[in-house]
Amino acid sequence: MSTRREFLKKTALGAIAAIGTAQTSGALTPSAPAIHRNGGTGRMKLTYFPYELKLRHVFTVATYSRTTTPDVQVEIEYEGLTGYGEASMPPYLAKELGTTESVCEFLGRVQKIIGDFKDPTQLEDILSYIDGMDEGNAAGKTAVDIALHDLVGKITGQSWYRMWGLNPAKAPSTTFTIGIDTAEVVKQKTLECADKFNILKVKLGRENDKEMIETVRSVTNLPIAIDANQGWKDKQHALDMILWLKEKGIVMIEQPMPKGQIDDIAWVTEHSPLPVFADESIQRLKDIADMKGVFSGINIKLMKCTGMREGFKMVNTARALGMKVMVGCMTETSCATSAAAQLSPAVDFADLDGNLLIANDRFDGMKVIKGKITLPDRPGIGVIKL
Amino acid sequence: MSTRREFLKKTALGAIAAIGTAQTSGALTPSAPAIHRNGGTGRMKLTYFPYELKLRHVFTVATYSRTTTPDVQVEIEYEGLTGYGEASMPPYLAKELGTTESVCEFLGRVQKIIGDFKDPTQLEDILSYIDGMDEGNAAGKTAVDIALHDLVGKITGQSWYRMWGLNPAKAPSTTFTIGIDTAEVVKQKTLECADKFNILKVKLGRENDKEMIETVRSVTNLPIAIDANQGWKDKQHALDMILWLKEKGIVMIEQPMPKGQIDDIAWVTEHSPLPVFADESIQRLKDIADMKGVFSGINIKLMKCTGMREGFKMVNTARALGMKVMVGCMTETSCATSAAAQLSPAVDFADLDGNLLIANDRFDGMKVIKGKITLPDRPGIGVIKL
Repeated sequence: MSTRREFLKKTALGAIAAIGTAQTSGALTPSAPAIHRNGGTGRMKLTYFPYELKLRHVFTVATYSRTTTPDVQVEIEYEGLTGYGEASMPPYLAKELGTTESVCEFLGRVQKIIGDFKDPTQLEDILSYIDGMDEGNAAGKTAVDIALHDLVGKITGQSWYRMWGLNPAKAPSTTFTIGIDTAEVVKQKTLECADKFNILKVKLGRENDKEMIETVRSVTNLPIAIDANQGWKDKQHALDMILWLKEKGIVMIEQPMPKGQIDDIAWVTEHSPLPVFADESIQRLKDIADMKGVFSGINIKLMKCTGMREGFKMVNTARALGMKVMVGCMTETSCATSAAAQLSPAVDFADLDGNLLIANDRFDGMKVIKGKITLPDRPGIGVIKL
Repeated sequence: MSTRREFLKKTALGAIAAIGTAQTSGALTPSAPAIHRNGGTGRMKLTYFPYELKLRHVFTVATYSRTTTPDVQVEIEYEGLTGYGEASMPPYLAKELGTTESVCEFLGRVQKIIGDFKDPTQLEDILSYIDGMDEGNAAGKTAVDIALHDLVGKITGQSWYRMWGLNPAKAPSTTFTIGIDTAEVVKQKTLECADKFNILKVKLGRENDKEMIETVRSVTNLPIAIDANQGWKDKQHALDMILWLKEKGIVMIEQPMPKGQIDDIAWVTEHSPLPVFADESIQRLKDIADMKGVFSGINIKLMKCTGMREGFKMVNTARALGMKVMVGCMTETSCATSAAAQLSPAVDFADLDGNLLIANDRFDGMKVIKGKITLPDRPGIGVIKL
């Protein structure tokens, strides 16, 4: 706790030192509400509660199936405004993201200290401090980050795509995942999706990879993104699959091989005619530089990278390194997908179908219209509670 | 021109496609002026004029002296608001930055097209397009970037340190440069500065390096930053100098050796007890990754890197690569130094004394109070025209 107190003390002293300048202020524009200019006089208050997400359909990955996803909802109140945030924690990612229990314990600690920060707009200070409070619980950090961004957007009256200088018309189409199932069910589901989306996603890395693609291709010519989920263990097999997939109209490959096989992945990427994206191989900003030359691009997921602030830094750093960028999600409400959608105008591919997979969404936010991510013209992350 | 037309056409089509969502809007906060939410109905208008900066004292570098600096002032008007920008072009950097003539020619071309962009807040689109209009003239690009940032801040009612989530109290002290002169003059100037600044800067890389430091040290114990301006040609000499300087209370070294001697610089940095910053070795965002492992940090100068947007991306990318960051300037008015000061809360060292060196400043903006950079609580870059 002494670290925090020193931190806050330093910040407060700095703020006092800065008061001199505020007196020389002038030229306020009509759109600048004076009460908010130095952080107002309010005190931030954080609340949270577990909220189990009900899946519309059984979710199957290589190792197991499930019908719910653990989730925690967060709200931060300040001067009559409420910022919404969310932590989604698929059990197979518990180690990095946390569990309902660990995230609630973490949020309980954040609840005690967040009111000590006087100005919600000072996101760098607040989020750096919160990041330092725990080694793990990335999803809990993300929930606070999203709620703060929503709050700050409401304070300033701006959406985050606007704060970031992005053009909402540049938001890409989202992929929609065709789950693994019998050929008949896959055909049926693909047909249902084919007129709602502009690009599909298929998870491979099993025995029946080619069969699955042939089945989807028997009913649609839409572009397809592949997530191999580390499934291919041999580099020559991975490259052969990619060359075959290229002929079938596939446009990108995610995580072809296990994250430990760095040299094999670099070889595959070097020879691949399709861009190869890192998912399991990357979690946060600090991981990107080491993946230059290994992958063509990175998949940014807010729940893994601690939120919107780090996510946007990841976009810019990947670009600076000449890498491509995609944005992904977990199964989550429109709260977290709308947060991720704010940075989608800056990415090459988007996989933001998580909110479409649940039956008990709590928010109206980003929409998929004719397959394209469509951003609401509202402040913050752009959601309204249903 | 056809490229631009296609670009604008695509953007316009995207905007039409997005209109659907705008209808579902709601929950506006009082601070969100509706007229500005979709870029308003105005048209941006850019004006510019050459403005020769008069230096308070003769400026001397290794190769020549001068009493003025070529400069061009820019204004962008939009819906009754005016954003201010500036291009400063020290003659020794003409190749990268441009000249008064080349920058005015470039701004003439920008003037013709800027009104085609309907929403000033879409900085990524606008600045990417402008960057693509010319290979060089970085200072001209910076002038447009600063004016647009000032305008967007006035549209949203926010300062840029606030848009970037930074705490203004974290702005560092600025260095102030003690010019090369006779021992008596150096002593006199140092004494005059010693109670106004918390850190000094001395340019080395000549025959009399040690004598210069001894002279400054004879009258003050303030921390000192060194800019060697590529002056040391031998790596062992460079390291010996750094080890000697460390004992004299020097805290950092800028560009110890010529930019071509990459391996030598990497060796010096590896053995140096002080952080070593790249100046001449780096210009823009794309250059940073190659300097990891060569330098400990980078010096970001807005006139070189095309402005605030790329400058802030450079801060985040350098941090992601584990590098330190400083922000510098040219001789320039308080317009450009106030723009650079917006990102100063995110850096380790600041060298923003350029506005203190000129006799004909046009703006009131960032101030140096008790040696510390002090940011005005005003929207945009925080300047008022005098």
